[in-house]
Amino acid sequence: MAYNELYQYSVVSSLMEGVGETGIPYSQLVTHGDHGLGTFRRMTGEMICLDNQVYQMKSDGSIVTIDTSTGDDVAPFAMVTRFQPSVTTSIAFDSKHGLSDIMTKLFPKTKNRYLSFRLDGLFESVAVRTADGQKYKHEKLTELHQRQTTYEFTNVRGSLIGFRSPEFLQGVSVAGDHLHFISDERDRGGHVLDCKSAGEAQFSGSIMSTVHMQLPDDDEYNEANLELDDDGIRKVEG
Amino acid sequence: MAYNELYQYSVVSSLMEGVGETGIPYSQLVTHGDHGLGTFRRMTGEMICLDNQVYQMKSDGSIVTIDTSTGDDVAPFAMVTRFQPSVTTSIAFDSKHGLSDIMTKLFPKTKNRYLSFRLDGLFESVAVRTADGQKYKHEKLTELHQRQTTYEFTNVRGSLIGFRSPEFLQGVSVAGDHLHFISDERDRGGHVLDCKSAGEAQFSGSIMSTVHMQLPDDDEYNEANLELDDDGIRKVEG
Repeated sequence: MAYNELYQYSVVSSLMEGVGETGIPYSQLVTHGDHGLGTFRRMTGEMICLDNQVYQMKSDGSIVTIDTSTGDDVAPFAMVTRFQPSVTTSIAFDSKHGLSDIMTKLFPKTKNRYLSFRLDGLFESVAVRTADGQKYKHEKLTELHQRQTTYEFTNVRGSLIGFRSPEFLQGVSVAGDHLHFISDERDRGGHVLDCKSAGEAQFSGSIMSTVHMQLPDDDEYNEANLELDDDGIRKVEG
Repeated sequence: MAYNELYQYSVVSSLMEGVGETGIPYSQLVTHGDHGLGTFRRMTGEMICLDNQVYQMKSDGSIVTIDTSTGDDVAPFAMVTRFQPSVTTSIAFDSKHGLSDIMTKLFPKTKNRYLSFRLDGLFESVAVRTADGQKYKHEKLTELHQRQTTYEFTNVRGSLIGFRSPEFLQGVSVAGDHLHFISDERDRGGHVLDCKSAGEAQFSGSIMSTVHMQLPDDDEYNEANLELDDDGIRKVEG
């Protein structure tokens, strides 16, 4: 796949419906990109992909490096790209919302396309959550959400990997900004609820206009009633 | 592109908003598939692609064979695939709705994926409409719709080319069945409103699970306010 094309496996509405038994093997997923985020079988933890590594960030705080040479681990949902930034700069921000505003200025006229981005540096605070996995088959994401584990890391050095998706593609992807964090020490991370840089962090980003979407071919997906739950997605992925 | 993968240029919500000044050159589009439908600059007529030919079916009833070796003609929206049917059979149907029911039985467990299909034979009746093109820049599809030209052909031999798109992808594609018709004589055709076979017609179809979506990179698209207009799409594309 060429640089800065989005590869997406399944759709967020499917994840919302609790379709989590199978997915794309990570050994296949990494052939489509080196920068991304997603989840694992039965939504056990948060996935982040960077620097040719895939990590599983679990609700107990542990982080597992995924062996992508085997097909054991699967992603019921994932977004990856071969990241080649077109914009690199240093930015300071005091919240996820502030970061969002900066990116909107850095990339004008992109509201109907995707962005991929990365931040590296020292963060004054990063608030994350991690999903602890489905308790039963087809448990919906809004239910998992109620018992998510949250952590707040302070003065932590690490990387944020994220995507911005167009509002009109809510349900396919997560509309707006969706980002995961991992520390340089690879010992802390998760789905980012809020973040604040300590001084300036290194920003890199690119527009993505080409999307490759793989819809699953299994009974669980085929039988799911996929309907847009805009409020639900904003609650669990916001 | 492999067989039975969908290539889609832009999204239906963009067309609804009247984004029609530019698009993918037909010389490029045909490298992605040999079976499809779409439209032309400023929504002038209906496009059908079959048997390695692209036709523009205009509201005055004329049909133009597009020279796809040049880049002169563009599609603001199009869906194509390299069609290789997995199901071929003979079917009789008395309406577009009846055809839809038959396809649902032929392809169980596909409501969350795409179908591509084709019908060849003698049709007792085919009711079509053709868009006459935007009268001004950004004229919305719901406005164009109000002055569409309709024709009803009887005892006509020809081909129907169509796609079924998942309900949850309304706005990206046209949810449900979307089909265009062209006569064997290449002298009649359009967007199908209703159809009835004369005896049995030859059906061929395939599931599509892999989607390649190209989002436009031009100011007109980037500035459009893309929101899902479910009722509007059902009215103009139903």
